[in-house]
Amino acid sequence: MVSTIQSNKNIDYRAVAAKVAQVLVDSAAERDRLGGLPEEEIQLLKESGLLLLAVPQEYGGVGASWSEIYQVVQTLSAADGSTGQLYTNHVVLVNLGQAVGRIGQAEQLYCLTSEHNLFWANAVNARDARLKITPDGDRFLVNGIKSFGTGVAVGDLNVIAAVHQSIDDPITFILPKDRAGITYNYDWHNMGQRRTASGSYTFNNVYVNPAEILGPPPVFESAFPTLIFLVAQLSKTFVYLGIAEGALAAAKAYTTTNTRPWLSSGVDRATKDPYILHHYGEFWTQLQAAIALAERAAQKIDLGWQQGVSLTFEERGDIAVSVSAAKAFAAQVGLDITTKMFEVTGARATALRYGFDRYWRDLRTFTLHDPVDYKLRDVGNWLLNDIFPTPSQYS
Amino acid sequence: MVSTIQSNKNIDYRAVAAKVAQVLVDSAAERDRLGGLPEEEIQLLKESGLLLLAVPQEYGGVGASWSEIYQVVQTLSAADGSTGQLYTNHVVLVNLGQAVGRIGQAEQLYCLTSEHNLFWANAVNARDARLKITPDGDRFLVNGIKSFGTGVAVGDLNVIAAVHQSIDDPITFILPKDRAGITYNYDWHNMGQRRTASGSYTFNNVYVNPAEILGPPPVFESAFPTLIFLVAQLSKTFVYLGIAEGALAAAKAYTTTNTRPWLSSGVDRATKDPYILHHYGEFWTQLQAAIALAERAAQKIDLGWQQGVSLTFEERGDIAVSVSAAKAFAAQVGLDITTKMFEVTGARATALRYGFDRYWRDLRTFTLHDPVDYKLRDVGNWLLNDIFPTPSQYS
Amino acid sequence: MVSTIQSNKNIDYRAVAAKVAQVLVDSAAERDRLGGLPEEEIQLLKESGLLLLAVPQEYGGVGASWSEIYQVVQTLSAADGSTGQLYTNHVVLVNLGQAVGRIGQAEQLYCLTSEHNLFWANAVNARDARLKITPDGDRFLVNGIKSFGTGVAVGDLNVIAAVHQSIDDPITFILPKDRAGITYNYDWHNMGQRRTASGSYTFNNVYVNPAEILGPPPVFESAFPTLIFLVAQLSKTFVYLGIAEGALAAAKAYTTTNTRPWLSSGVDRATKDPYILHHYGEFWTQLQAAIALAERAAQKIDLGWQQGVSLTFEERGDIAVSVSAAKAFAAQVGLDITTKMFEVTGARATALRYGFDRYWRDLRTFTLHDPVDYKLRDVGNWLLNDIFPTPSQYS
Amino acid sequence: MVSTIQSNKNIDYRAVAAKVAQVLVDSAAERDRLGGLPEEEIQLLKESGLLLLAVPQEYGGVGASWSEIYQVVQTLSAADGSTGQLYTNHVVLVNLGQAVGRIGQAEQLYCLTSEHNLFWANAVNARDARLKITPDGDRFLVNGIKSFGTGVAVGDLNVIAAVHQSIDDPITFILPKDRAGITYNYDWHNMGQRRTASGSYTFNNVYVNPAEILGPPPVFESAFPTLIFLVAQLSKTFVYLGIAEGALAAAKAYTTTNTRPWLSSGVDRATKDPYILHHYGEFWTQLQAAIALAERAAQKIDLGWQQGVSLTFEERGDIAVSVSAAKAFAAQVGLDITTKMFEVTGARATALRYGFDRYWRDLRTFTLHDPVDYKLRDVGNWLLNDIFPTPSQYS
Repeated sequence: MVSTIQSNKNIDYRAVAAKVAQVLVDSAAERDRLGGLPEEEIQLLKESGLLLLAVPQEYGGVGASWSEIYQVVQTLSAADGSTGQLYTNHVVLVNLGQAVGRIGQAEQLYCLTSEHNLFWANAVNARDARLKITPDGDRFLVNGIKSFGTGVAVGDLNVIAAVHQSIDDPITFILPKDRAGITYNYDWHNMGQRRTASGSYTFNNVYVNPAEILGPPPVFESAFPTLIFLVAQLSKTFVYLGIAEGALAAAKAYTTTNTRPWLSSGVDRATKDPYILHHYGEFWTQLQAAIALAERAAQKIDLGWQQGVSLTFEERGDIAVSVSAAKAFAAQVGLDITTKMFEVTGARATALRYGFDRYWRDLRTFTLHDPVDYKLRDVGNWLLNDIFPTPSQYS
Repeated sequence: MVSTIQSNKNIDYRAVAAKVAQVLVDSAAERDRLGGLPEEEIQLLKESGLLLLAVPQEYGGVGASWSEIYQVVQTLSAADGSTGQLYTNHVVLVNLGQAVGRIGQAEQLYCLTSEHNLFWANAVNARDARLKITPDGDRFLVNGIKSFGTGVAVGDLNVIAAVHQSIDDPITFILPKDRAGITYNYDWHNMGQRRTASGSYTFNNVYVNPAEILGPPPVFESAFPTLIFLVAQLSKTFVYLGIAEGALAAAKAYTTTNTRPWLSSGVDRATKDPYILHHYGEFWTQLQAAIALAERAAQKIDLGWQQGVSLTFEERGDIAVSVSAAKAFAAQVGLDITTKMFEVTGARATALRYGFDRYWRDLRTFTLHDPVDYKLRDVGNWLLNDIFPTPSQYS
Repeated sequence: MVSTIQSNKNIDYRAVAAKVAQVLVDSAAERDRLGGLPEEEIQLLKESGLLLLAVPQEYGGVGASWSEIYQVVQTLSAADGSTGQLYTNHVVLVNLGQAVGRIGQAEQLYCLTSEHNLFWANAVNARDARLKITPDGDRFLVNGIKSFGTGVAVGDLNVIAAVHQSIDDPITFILPKDRAGITYNYDWHNMGQRRTASGSYTFNNVYVNPAEILGPPPVFESAFPTLIFLVAQLSKTFVYLGIAEGALAAAKAYTTTNTRPWLSSGVDRATKDPYILHHYGEFWTQLQAAIALAERAAQKIDLGWQQGVSLTFEERGDIAVSVSAAKAFAAQVGLDITTKMFEVTGARATALRYGFDRYWRDLRTFTLHDPVDYKLRDVGNWLLNDIFPTPSQYS
Repeated sequence: MVSTIQSNKNIDYRAVAAKVAQVLVDSAAERDRLGGLPEEEIQLLKESGLLLLAVPQEYGGVGASWSEIYQVVQTLSAADGSTGQLYTNHVVLVNLGQAVGRIGQAEQLYCLTSEHNLFWANAVNARDARLKITPDGDRFLVNGIKSFGTGVAVGDLNVIAAVHQSIDDPITFILPKDRAGITYNYDWHNMGQRRTASGSYTFNNVYVNPAEILGPPPVFESAFPTLIFLVAQLSKTFVYLGIAEGALAAAKAYTTTNTRPWLSSGVDRATKDPYILHHYGEFWTQLQAAIALAERAAQKIDLGWQQGVSLTFEERGDIAVSVSAAKAFAAQVGLDITTKMFEVTGARATALRYGFDRYWRDLRTFTLHDPVDYKLRDVGNWLLNDIFPTPSQYS
């Protein structure tokens, strides 16, 4: 399977994504109900070849641009928010070497990934400082706990961040699936994105080889290393857009087949109801605006990524503002659609066999990754004061 | 227990409701997870004496006004939307005899209820015409199926509506719990209001005695009989308000104890975050506006109810407009609060052990009972054209 | 005229207000266009007897409650926002003696007002510290400039605040109309509330007698003296509500007589258009919610005012929260209605002869008195942290 | 001047537009106050060369694409909504020959325009049927009145539509400036777009030569002739966007220089106020989303225009949906910004010398051209029912 992918760099990834999405959407409500580990989803992604979309062609991948990758993120997320999140993390993580790796590390990680068709996951949540790394002879030991470790239980390569006693920033390293001492606590019992295995992981004397540590990047003064955070932020935006798009498609399918006209509406079909038509007009208009805004930011991301270490902080700042705006807007639009989709489908659409509430639960959960209010404040601070968002995991 | 209640008409029903609410809220997330029959909830209501709140004192009840009853509805719904819905149906149904019963029927039903402390439920959904009633000698037989039969599986007295071949309006009758031939299909697998047993019921040659048929009311030309529909519509409004109130209280409890200040907020506690404070200010303001609007409508309901059969259609129309406005507004405010409560609590508040998504799921489900858009159209039609909403189950 | 009023304390002030409003509304668009001094408006108020509404009966006034006064404020403001603002300032200022006067000062000012049927105005804007007061022998001299001196040019008694070199809080004093040295700069050329003469006033060696200084109040530790600020804040709220109500009434009158159905609407009259009906339903619903919320706050103001110096800071705080919520909500609702009223009237309704834009201009201008955002923050801060708004001119 | 332009087809029209906009913005508030005929504005446009932007190069024009033209529309409208509207009408009208002219008519009109640097205006309002055209020998006579004749008083070539007794659709013709019998009634006394001379025109025995009649187009079955209506609808959209952009720029300039921090904000500059920053973030985000959506529609317009008579009704329908969505969204965003800009500038920004209310007045007036609600209904009808908007002047 893997060799097939590698030999077929002209993969029509959009068609592949659409096909994967179709498989996912059919079982999404049921998998949402079950929760648990997304093993079949990762298997599906592996078999599809989509894991190599973000690996450059010279290292055996498809070499798609971020704009192209984001479209796949959106398509998958429209079918299944959880898989969308896992996939979007993967495409970003697989490029961590390029962003912040030391010389040669990107190439090594790209090759490793494409050779074995590997899935990447991570537990780097900057707001949880309970995981510690300490020197131990010529290697390191990691102990403690880390929350929000999305997909690590099913990851082939897992990016982990831990705090070192005498260094300000956490140390980030990449561990293979079989590294001893890592235990998933099976505690992702949350209301949305239920198949992401985003719970906590306990580390008990997990060793880390120096070679497994990520970075340091060769050019520190560049804005490029922190561009990856914006790549990731915008990638999440496309998950939001996908979920909203999926909700709208599901609503449309239901309204046109199941919804009955209201008693006093004076129309004989729900699809002629003036308020239902108006709601759909609003949904589509808002969603297209959000997509247009995000795609503009994606074009900037593409250009910024191409610049590599010559990217200036001003250029990065400009991208950061666009990404912040796109993310905040997509969140607002998506929440509106996933709540109001019921007003155009009706009471019987609340039956669990349709699973329509998962759109709201997934989006509501994932849009809490970091607060929309501070995205908007950052945009305002730039507009009013010419101050760019401070580079961070979130901006 | 029952005798205690009957002997104590000066029951401090607010304190009792608060106590029942406390019991309910502690287990609400777990019961929401389980779904199933609300047997323990109904038992709790029975033991509390609250079932007799809406029964006049002369027939062994507390004789509370609708305004007073609505406060209890709100209190219970803040704890548990499902129980709130069951209770609100009960208080309305127990007054059906007064509204549309034939002479003497109200008294009989009130006495029966208070003597045995009975819980009422119903399956009268006007949009489902699959249940048929046919004459069979000196009684009737009922066959078919009825959806949205909230709580019938646990009702002591169940109000059912079925279609008679040669009569325009459906025939409504009241059956005791043990009437043979009624089967619950255990099919209320819906995203919200999960402990209301609102699924479908199959009727197989269920007999109905003529005495069990409700009505006809003595004065047909009065607006009073259809006032009960407005009583019910406003009662649902207080369920909405209760759910929103419960969500706000839960959010506050969480924010003040669990939420961490955002990294770039510049404050050391989430409770000092300017955006979080602003959100809470919005929530409370909107909710109080919705409560104030609904309480105004409740005062009108009280006055209208007191007038009895002398109620004019113009007076009823004025009440209908107020109720429509209050219901539409409460739905909008509630959906806003139950969605945005997560922006003031944060990502970790999505853990299922908190069960915070049930507020949105419950409210979203129950607010689909009938469309908000047509409520607002009706209000506009009155304002612009002096046309009152056509009396119906929904207006 | 005045004697008539004084002898008729049972004045039907609502009918009087309605009559005054009718006179005002007929010329409102024209006076808005002209700007200039509101001399005829004040004359109208004087002749109506409404100036004495807020003066206790024992001092020759009507002795209306704040709730009653606010209804008059709303009625006048529905006709003409400028007059509403002038009147609302008057009713508050006439009670300043009661709130913060020294012993006997309230009685003296009430009597003076009712005896001569006086109109009060003020220039106390706390944000402008350019007006200075200095001792000069046994009296004081005032020099400088003060902006936002609403109506001082037409005031019989003018409340002025000036900064004293060695005292923290500004000194407030009351000057008669003919005091030498006060010049209106005729600089209220603003987009709304154009007939309030709210420009700046220059003071050139204006003397102030010690007896003209307001206060100090006898009981400093009471919350009562600062209750007057809340009385004023809520009074402004009723101006907002009145303007919104006036806009809605004007829109309705236009839609029902002038608006044509849209080409593709499928209806033969604009009053049957589903979207127009829906908008009107929204307008009315929101406005009633805002009125209900404000009237609740008014009831609290009534109770608080009755308590006088026994009012506790906790009670005041509770009132402050209710007033803040009501004011913020009224502003939001009013802006929505005054903007969207054009969507239900149409392009031809923008003709200046209708003057419909004055509703938005008046409301937009007056709602900037102090920021809505901080009102909501204050409400949130109380809800979350049990901290009452700090007593001030604005909270 | 004209020859200069014609010889310089590589005009940097963006720089020219920016320069013209700068001139316009400096006097916009004053001209808004005055109303009257936009003679100096048209003179300015003539001198700038921008009138020939929409004329193909082969006929002496610049030959800009619609996307390019729309940018100029936006730039001019940011400075002055009235001039933006006049200009946007011109660029559309100058292409009427191309859209619906008979063979050779487009070329003739383009050449005439570029040779004499002519400004086009129109009075074609489909909702006013009072203007009649009747045969009179070998020519026609026009009598009656036509409202909303934007700019005809200053137009060199005026497109007029009048009703013919025996033909369904109105007849459209093009008259030169000096044609006898046309009188402007100087009755554009409206709240916004005050320098567009959009009042009514009286026609008294105005003759029309057959050659002056527009059309008929050679290919009736094509969707191309009605594409011009979409070109015009989207052009108006860019006027909306421009006005919103101008409002945001004006607000920013004011906040950063004039607005004072609120008393209880805890910050020392308004530009650090968390709520002000948040508002600006919202404004910019919404505006960029609206621009992105409109620019997508503009790209479709470009492609559709290039197709000419081979444009299918399905392709036109797709464009119509995109244009409807963009127009509705721009209107909503613009109204929000032009109302809320005052919350980030404050009470003193209502002074007429700033003229900030003209943004709302202009936008509010022009967005009433045709109802937003029906735009959204049309989008919903397409999404749900695959029905394209019926081609018309408005869709």
